[in-house]
Amino acid sequence: MEQLKIFTPATIANISCGFDVLGLALDTVGDEMLIKKVAKKGVTITKIIGQDLPLDTHKNVAGVAALALLAETDCEFGFEIEINKQIKPGSGIGSSAASSAGAVWAINEMLGKPFSNLELVRFAMEGERLATGVPHADNVAPALFGGFTLVRSYQPLDIVKINTPSQLFASVIHPQIEVKTSDAREILKTSVPLKEAIKQWGNVGGLISGLYTEDYDLIGRSLEDFIIEPIRSILIPAFDAVKQNCINTGALGCGISGSGPSIFALSKGEETAIKVGEAMKAVYDKVGIPYDIHISKINKQGIKKI
Amino acid sequence: MEQLKIFTPATIANISCGFDVLGLALDTVGDEMLIKKVAKKGVTITKIIGQDLPLDTHKNVAGVAALALLAETDCEFGFEIEINKQIKPGSGIGSSAASSAGAVWAINEMLGKPFSNLELVRFAMEGERLATGVPHADNVAPALFGGFTLVRSYQPLDIVKINTPSQLFASVIHPQIEVKTSDAREILKTSVPLKEAIKQWGNVGGLISGLYTEDYDLIGRSLEDFIIEPIRSILIPAFDAVKQNCINTGALGCGISGSGPSIFALSKGEETAIKVGEAMKAVYDKVGIPYDIHISKINKQGIKKI
Repeated sequence: MEQLKIFTPATIANISCGFDVLGLALDTVGDEMLIKKVAKKGVTITKIIGQDLPLDTHKNVAGVAALALLAETDCEFGFEIEINKQIKPGSGIGSSAASSAGAVWAINEMLGKPFSNLELVRFAMEGERLATGVPHADNVAPALFGGFTLVRSYQPLDIVKINTPSQLFASVIHPQIEVKTSDAREILKTSVPLKEAIKQWGNVGGLISGLYTEDYDLIGRSLEDFIIEPIRSILIPAFDAVKQNCINTGALGCGISGSGPSIFALSKGEETAIKVGEAMKAVYDKVGIPYDIHISKINKQGIKKI
Repeated sequence: MEQLKIFTPATIANISCGFDVLGLALDTVGDEMLIKKVAKKGVTITKIIGQDLPLDTHKNVAGVAALALLAETDCEFGFEIEINKQIKPGSGIGSSAASSAGAVWAINEMLGKPFSNLELVRFAMEGERLATGVPHADNVAPALFGGFTLVRSYQPLDIVKINTPSQLFASVIHPQIEVKTSDAREILKTSVPLKEAIKQWGNVGGLISGLYTEDYDLIGRSLEDFIIEPIRSILIPAFDAVKQNCINTGALGCGISGSGPSIFALSKGEETAIKVGEAMKAVYDKVGIPYDIHISKINKQGIKKI
């Protein structure tokens, strides 16, 4: 295989109750990457379309992740990476994760799959470390495994792929404002009331149960975040209005995608998800903030060849 | 139906990572109750075999729970309750819950099942309120629903029955020392580090996933409690030694049953569970603390007629 073209999806981390552990992959929004095998060892980022991001391998998340993988091989050749960046950096839907995960997935394919998905998560996390300072896995895991994923533990790294009900659709609105992941992390409190933590893990249990039994009502009831959302939502203009509009329109639940500013809602059925998207747009049209909107079924496959 | 004889099971609450939300029902240890329909309205506790507990209806958990149920009916007759108490009060395996849940389950049967299991949990919680001051549901829910249960939320009350893998067995040792639920609750901290809370809800997610996919290894990896066990285990002599012995003997995981002092372990297969029970006994034989031991498959049915 001399070259490989892939689609690598945007992802929603946290999913309300599952801060730092849950994530899901989207289907209609993601980057395209072209990876070429070349004689020269190492990794070269040859071109980035759509966004102004560093071409220097060591400053690019895809480059850093790819190098982390290659460091554990005795590969006698190298790779060139071209990225068609459709996911805006800083949108909160896993832009860096898509590039990091895409690079390691594609190279693993071209090397004959020496590494498991779990090992690929570990390499892709090095891209996340470069992007945010924290090597988190809650975006790269769903990109690589597809569907819903749980990062059960970091030490040791343990990723669980969760069943994904077929009628589950996401609506995502990205208001064009900047919220840095590092800022969104800094405003969090380092301790939480035990009472709230109990409610939170009750909801994590409910959400996981609902995903396995495909109980959409239970999924909806469980999509509640008592700990992070009350704090982070103040960084996102009109968050409460968007959320209320989504619920009124029939969404199962609504919350902050990753560290924001994107807001996601989950719905049963595409028709409802489209209406929920319209309800999201209505709020930002009124407030006068420009936005991108995505409606997507949950991507059970994750990264794929195109 | 003029009278009904039932078995009402002992239960394990918390199950390591699921403090206040998870519980499971046992099969080989529980109380027997005989409930008779009588002309006189209200509830009379006629006899308690095996333990010295109050016969006064308002001071007996079964009486209080039964009265809570009857208050929502226009029942023109009453009930007499006889309890053969096999579960020792204060053992940490849901003694009060068995009586409370058993009373309301049996009366509901005799009235033609006007109430759902969820409503029965609500009535049985009144028994728990009398016993511990807190109307918790994590023991009465598994007694009533059977198998593993999740109390996703208290307001509103929302109980989820979780899939129970058939090869899962519990070993429980009850060292004959006293740990009051109220004391076990008081020593807990009211806030927890966010980092630890994240690990905890990662494990809740892992445990629920493992139960649905019947992945025994994942169940084992998820049976870890970063928040409650480190504090409460100091109230239980030789806890660490018992736990280590269980794990060394092949248990999937081991923790405090409810607020203790009973210690439980879960194993794949009865044979391992029996060996794990022997490993538990060995520790208390050495320390010289008397104990009861129970080996049980998980009771998927909950309370049943006998």
